[in-house]
Amino acid sequence: MKKIILDADTGIDDALAILYALGSNECELIGITSIYGNVSVDTSVENSLSILDLVEHQNIPVYKGSEAKLGSDTYERREITKKIHGHDGIGDVHIPKSTRSAESKNAVDFLIEACEEHGSELTIVATSPLTNLAKAFTKAPESIKKVGKIVIMGGALTVTGNVTPYAEANIIEDPNAAKTIFESGLPIVMVGLDVTMRTLITLNETKALRKLNTKNSELIADMIDFYFRSYEGRLSGVYGCPLHDPLAVGIALHPELASTLAIDLTVETSGASKGRTIGLMDKLNEGSPSTEVCVQVDESKFIELFMESLKNICK
Amino acid sequence: MKKIILDADTGIDDALAILYALGSNECELIGITSIYGNVSVDTSVENSLSILDLVEHQNIPVYKGSEAKLGSDTYERREITKKIHGHDGIGDVHIPKSTRSAESKNAVDFLIEACEEHGSELTIVATSPLTNLAKAFTKAPESIKKVGKIVIMGGALTVTGNVTPYAEANIIEDPNAAKTIFESGLPIVMVGLDVTMRTLITLNETKALRKLNTKNSELIADMIDFYFRSYEGRLSGVYGCPLHDPLAVGIALHPELASTLAIDLTVETSGASKGRTIGLMDKLNEGSPSTEVCVQVDESKFIELFMESLKNICK
Repeated sequence: MKKIILDADTGIDDALAILYALGSNECELIGITSIYGNVSVDTSVENSLSILDLVEHQNIPVYKGSEAKLGSDTYERREITKKIHGHDGIGDVHIPKSTRSAESKNAVDFLIEACEEHGSELTIVATSPLTNLAKAFTKAPESIKKVGKIVIMGGALTVTGNVTPYAEANIIEDPNAAKTIFESGLPIVMVGLDVTMRTLITLNETKALRKLNTKNSELIADMIDFYFRSYEGRLSGVYGCPLHDPLAVGIALHPELASTLAIDLTVETSGASKGRTIGLMDKLNEGSPSTEVCVQVDESKFIELFMESLKNICK
Repeated sequence: MKKIILDADTGIDDALAILYALGSNECELIGITSIYGNVSVDTSVENSLSILDLVEHQNIPVYKGSEAKLGSDTYERREITKKIHGHDGIGDVHIPKSTRSAESKNAVDFLIEACEEHGSELTIVATSPLTNLAKAFTKAPESIKKVGKIVIMGGALTVTGNVTPYAEANIIEDPNAAKTIFESGLPIVMVGLDVTMRTLITLNETKALRKLNTKNSELIADMIDFYFRSYEGRLSGVYGCPLHDPLAVGIALHPELASTLAIDLTVETSGASKGRTIGLMDKLNEGSPSTEVCVQVDESKFIELFMESLKNICK
């Protein structure tokens, strides 16, 4: 059982990452830290709580984190994000709202305390802008350095970005925070578009969920079908969606799913290619890079594991 | 023995690639096709002939190829290239000029005929802009498709470029030609800055050459020392140079030196990132990519092989 914290801006694929983590027999989800991104931080908290309630995991604490990128206090939701994730962020399929609230402790403090308490046994899976993590690292670097691994869904090294030709969505939301984390020396696994765009599910998978014939399986399949529609025409003829955020959980639990390239990365923070994740030429000849970039993935094995977990959690 | 054609714009590291190929017991260099790039095509021919004469390999034919990029008939040498390779392109160390001339056959036709004649036994190593190859492929695609492998020193996938933050020198000289070749489906191995910037030699290696105490070893060491000076301050504290072009020969002869990522690439031909080599998102989920990008290299083993060959040829 791997202890995991999900640092999530809960849109549809974050929701799927939560469900996958809860349905896996190998994962102990010890908390969800919320952040702006696909939705505002308040909506992110609400969505995380709703998803937990939907599958009767009210025991998992949710912590509220950053409202906006470093140095800013305003968050503006991109128009495209509304189209991809829906008005409510989780596909507008009327998933019942939770009556619970976030914990009183701030997400940043929870991250610090969890690293102190669990050390190398803890994996943080960030499926969001990296503002919470950058704040935690800046506030208590020695605590965060105790973490086992940080698995980041974000960036694009060998392929083009999805917001600009250079930048992936989570990174471009807060390039400064991303730069802080990627240059921190922390043990990072980057799960970028290089691999997430290779892990596609289609109507076969949502049909399989519907066959389970439970209330939550219908809602989850509806949510995924919403996501499919937002990707229509963008996947070279495939009608379906990539599993960005769930793949980060998958690789946290099963590192053998991916082949990786060890390289120290930086993040560009200005200019046309702001948000680009790219190898640091200056460190190319230093030993032991701190980042492993996933460059290939066993997509069919991952989708099998993902579907197993979803079926477990939809019982 | 691998049959190799070198497609070279003979500056210093192309000269080293020629010497390495000649000194290796595993390589049969069947010809050098010349092209503009580090120098004009006429100087490239002259330099290739001079290097062959220097080590008494007058038997190797040199063919004259493209004078300028596709669609152009003027070549302008970059100021920085003069600094890196010297006024004469091979370090201004007074390597005697050859009295030989290029063959009467054009480089493009030689490439086509050699692919027809040797087929899968032939490896073309391009350490230059890809104009000759693009012309050959456009003129006789079915002939060029018979080639065993095309190993290209060029591009940068996981690190920044060396001419712009996006583009490597050989690719940006003729991005349209590079796009033609990278999208051709031909069996390509890309040896880009990702790996060439990891294979550095230093004064230790030129001192070892000087110790051989032959006339050509002195001249070759002088030429390399010129190259060192041009890299001063650019290699994070290392005084030396990367072995761009020789590494392409090294990987052609010993593929096991590199670990590779199989991915279909494109080349951007306009805009700020003109010359960028990047994964084709549309082909990410198709099987059997035609390009293997070298992402890691056994640099100490390669330098050992390179130095062995240089010592052989300096006898």
